[in-house]
Amino acid sequence: MYIICSDLEGVLVPEVWINVAEKTGIDELKLTTRDINDYDVLMKRRLEILSQNGISIGDIRNVISGLEPLPGALDFISWLHGKAQLIIVSDTFREFADPMLKKMGWPLLLCHHLTIDRHGMITDYNLRQKEAKMKVVEALQRLNFKVIAIGDSYNDIQMLRKAETGILFRPPQNVIDDNSDLLAVDTYDGLKEVISEKLETDGLS
Amino acid sequence: MYIICSDLEGVLVPEVWINVAEKTGIDELKLTTRDINDYDVLMKRRLEILSQNGISIGDIRNVISGLEPLPGALDFISWLHGKAQLIIVSDTFREFADPMLKKMGWPLLLCHHLTIDRHGMITDYNLRQKEAKMKVVEALQRLNFKVIAIGDSYNDIQMLRKAETGILFRPPQNVIDDNSDLLAVDTYDGLKEVISEKLETDGLS
Repeated sequence: MYIICSDLEGVLVPEVWINVAEKTGIDELKLTTRDINDYDVLMKRRLEILSQNGISIGDIRNVISGLEPLPGALDFISWLHGKAQLIIVSDTFREFADPMLKKMGWPLLLCHHLTIDRHGMITDYNLRQKEAKMKVVEALQRLNFKVIAIGDSYNDIQMLRKAETGILFRPPQNVIDDNSDLLAVDTYDGLKEVISEKLETDGLS
Repeated sequence: MYIICSDLEGVLVPEVWINVAEKTGIDELKLTTRDINDYDVLMKRRLEILSQNGISIGDIRNVISGLEPLPGALDFISWLHGKAQLIIVSDTFREFADPMLKKMGWPLLLCHHLTIDRHGMITDYNLRQKEAKMKVVEALQRLNFKVIAIGDSYNDIQMLRKAETGILFRPPQNVIDDNSDLLAVDTYDGLKEVISEKLETDGLS
């Protein structure tokens, strides 16, 4: 039985940090895992910038509450209902995610969490575990599921390669260049086609 | 970070087989895991009865489409949103579950699947794996989640004991008698109380 593991930002919703950068006018916050391969380096720099500029979790939640799922994302999620189940596997944080999950009908999200002080300032981030995305795929495979994984960035590649089927969705050119052997699609219709094919061969569509 | 693993039938929706028994008038289909400890013995007998009486997957789906979530179940699921994520862990089958999942807003369901022939007759059932409920809890713990598990029957006990917190919900007397050390609650408010307490101590509520 297939299960879908999809990245969140860039696949179903806009990039949170890029939007925080735009709202705050701090250009350096525009860097994402698409630009910096090392997530720890990236996150430490982001938290430093937030602290230096007095940006709280409330400020970030305000930005996130204003974000809408990418055009076509809600239709894609509805299309999956009754065909294959979806788990969102992301390097985002529980404290960011709720406004987005609500708009998507509360799909399951496996991600990380933040440490926040009494003043609402983010003092640290807590990875649930190393290689968290890939480990979700491994866990599902141990439960006898087959996995179709969808992602757009460097931090998705391990997950995509561990899954029975890995799909790059609207990846930037540098991610394509570094992973030219992976299937890449640019539309939700493209995703639906690949998923339909896999489900048919599984005999459980 | 806590995650909730809940049984389906008896906790969130009525017992499917009891309702199939009532609609078809075949009393023997009323037996559930509450009565027969060995799931394989129970399922083989059920499939035999269906075959003998010419009851197809379509007939069973018709019964299931008429079932509503238990009073209070939808409110309980809504209450969880933004507090703790829910995974439904059940010994039901994918082919049965969709009408119920739709009414609950498509929560993630980890369960088994059936083999159905061209005439719509159920010829076999396929367990995703042995000890499937307990293995879901183990998989989540390996992903660094803590688990609050909820169930009502013999087939939930392993899951409840493997979880950090196991709760019996409206169990029949024989299940209580055999597991008098497990916490038992009879209302969704009781579930909410136990879950709230756990989330508070986790610092992530």
